[in-house]
Amino acid sequence: EVHCLSTITSNPRHKQMHRDQDTRKIIHCIKVGISLVLVSLLYLLNPLFKQVGENAMWAIMTVVVMFEFSAGATLGKGFNRGLGTIIGGGLGCLVALFAQSIGIHRVGNSIIIAVSVFIFGSFATYLRLIPSIKKRYDYGVMIFILTFNLVVVSGARVNVKVWELARERLLNILIGFIVCVCVSLFVFPLWASNELHDSIVSRFLDLANTIQGCLGECTKTIDEKENQPRFSFNVCNSVLNSKSKDESLANFAKWEPWHGKFGLSYPWGRYLKIGEILREMAAFILATGRCLEASKEPMATLRESEWVHLETCEALESKVACILRELGDSIKKMMKCDAEGCVSEQLKAAREDLSFIISTSKMAQLEDAQVLAIATFVFLLMELIGKVEELAKEVEE
Amino acid sequence: EVHCLSTITSNPRHKQMHRDQDTRKIIHCIKVGISLVLVSLLYLLNPLFKQVGENAMWAIMTVVVMFEFSAGATLGKGFNRGLGTIIGGGLGCLVALFAQSIGIHRVGNSIIIAVSVFIFGSFATYLRLIPSIKKRYDYGVMIFILTFNLVVVSGARVNVKVWELARERLLNILIGFIVCVCVSLFVFPLWASNELHDSIVSRFLDLANTIQGCLGECTKTIDEKENQPRFSFNVCNSVLNSKSKDESLANFAKWEPWHGKFGLSYPWGRYLKIGEILREMAAFILATGRCLEASKEPMATLRESEWVHLETCEALESKVACILRELGDSIKKMMKCDAEGCVSEQLKAAREDLSFIISTSKMAQLEDAQVLAIATFVFLLMELIGKVEELAKEVEE
Repeated sequence: EVHCLSTITSNPRHKQMHRDQDTRKIIHCIKVGISLVLVSLLYLLNPLFKQVGENAMWAIMTVVVMFEFSAGATLGKGFNRGLGTIIGGGLGCLVALFAQSIGIHRVGNSIIIAVSVFIFGSFATYLRLIPSIKKRYDYGVMIFILTFNLVVVSGARVNVKVWELARERLLNILIGFIVCVCVSLFVFPLWASNELHDSIVSRFLDLANTIQGCLGECTKTIDEKENQPRFSFNVCNSVLNSKSKDESLANFAKWEPWHGKFGLSYPWGRYLKIGEILREMAAFILATGRCLEASKEPMATLRESEWVHLETCEALESKVACILRELGDSIKKMMKCDAEGCVSEQLKAAREDLSFIISTSKMAQLEDAQVLAIATFVFLLMELIGKVEELAKEVEE
Repeated sequence: EVHCLSTITSNPRHKQMHRDQDTRKIIHCIKVGISLVLVSLLYLLNPLFKQVGENAMWAIMTVVVMFEFSAGATLGKGFNRGLGTIIGGGLGCLVALFAQSIGIHRVGNSIIIAVSVFIFGSFATYLRLIPSIKKRYDYGVMIFILTFNLVVVSGARVNVKVWELARERLLNILIGFIVCVCVSLFVFPLWASNELHDSIVSRFLDLANTIQGCLGECTKTIDEKENQPRFSFNVCNSVLNSKSKDESLANFAKWEPWHGKFGLSYPWGRYLKIGEILREMAAFILATGRCLEASKEPMATLRESEWVHLETCEALESKVACILRELGDSIKKMMKCDAEGCVSEQLKAAREDLSFIISTSKMAQLEDAQVLAIATFVFLLMELIGKVEELAKEVEE
């Protein structure tokens, strides 16, 4: 039974994924704990504290703010923080010195500083609202505003020590950064690239299962239906809502260029494209499923009739699902699809089978509904598989 | 011409929306600038600086980190920051005092602190990974970790002043909080609730336009097609990807309970539900459109034939689009739909028209494809409108 088979294969996989996810979460928590303790040693050990003093606060702050779930995210935030601090600090120093050299009395000095705070603050905030900057450098710009402000107003106070102050804070942020990066990369690293890769692969399998389960449900007789729980399209919905997650993962993955499993310029953009196609496909499956659901009652009775070649439909569906699985596998192993020719030949055969179904089933109105749903479906699959083939060709082993 | 009409009505609206959005961005930037200047005055004005001292840094930090685009987001972050600081600071003090009272020599003291840093840090990080907490309290938990750590390790150093230190920082964070909230709420406030409301309403209109444009495109003759640019389904895709934005807006909107236009317990959950239905509908429109596209060539020639009642289809489509617009309007004005009865009657009529089309167009295979697409479509619309009606009933004026 096709449907049973699909649930059997899907459930343990999901459980396994959940378990993996839980393990990773716990690893992450422990890593954060370790980093925090390491950086707290700056305070707790006397010789260290004599070196860094109260500024050790900045190292702790850096660790808390910077440590993210995946290595890529941590690196990205660290890079942003470093860049923001350096540019903000540098500019802040310049403005502070400028104000000191021009403003002869304190009031003029203060006014120049207030104006510069307003201008730089507003302008940088505007930058944060530009989508392309927001996507990758939001945090860096925020740190820029923060550092610039702190340095500029401190410059108005402690006339001489402004460079000193900046240097010490930078040093401490650097310590925090190094702790984060070391723990994140060398203690059970959690790669965003792996996560993106796995989630794309598992989406192929999920959709393949949904395709099988969906028609499987509709072609069942009424007896069967009552015995099994209703098939749900949650998978489709979760695939549909995966865009923002994909994008942030791809963003993080770009920060992991040397990560062994993937090459130096791994095509993450292509993953986003595949994700986009998968989302479109999920939309189609959802529509198809709803469509079949609407005409459910007659469908079950049709099974016994001679008009319909439901067997062909089912065979077709499992073939399509099978191709999807194969493609998912080929991405998983990062190999060319065994034979692109083979996939496209299978698809051609499927298309022919389909036209056969259509031509032999003109009698019943409702039947057409079903056939059309499948036709739409296969049509979209063609499109999807064409694109994935293109991808499979380009991704080297 | 239906298609022309839809582009005419949609373009100026989009331009207007873009202009509004730009204005709001600039207002936001200026507000951030003002807040930064206000809080910098703590440093720049001598009498104030004497009161707060170096801790004014915390006020600046609070403003930079807390000031978000909408009033709700700012309040939410402020609340999180306040709560995190208080709980973290309180616990930190307790642990520091506990360590002091137990650890007789410095080493024991340090070990207790290091262990507590590890345990609280790991546990709080685990909390951050739980979806329901992540959604609303992520920032608060992060601040908790930060404050707890800083207080605990400072406690190991400056034995007496730990309460003093905590009190002063809290005071400065409070100043930053007050500045943020005042500027955010009283200087041209930007409400997340308004934004959510508007984006839902505009999605109704966008989808209505897409429905009209999509069939309008397909029923055109080939000549017409060459003269006009290809109709795109970008709207559907953007609606499909709106989930995370909606959720965060609804989250923020919950922080704006007294906001004049909306009541005290405005049903934001319902907005999310409508958003969900609209997304499902967009998936259907996308599928329908692709389906019509696939059978485009024959469709155009069918126009001249007698078999097809394309006029009826078109009329039906504009009726459905019209109902959608009406519903969008009723949400916009926050009134009950003029007559729910009216809407459902119109829908019933549409359904009858549809069955008429289906029954009179059995002859051609391709025709069925089109009819089925529309049938799917209307079927989904029914569902959508049923739910919206329910909503319209419940939302009081």
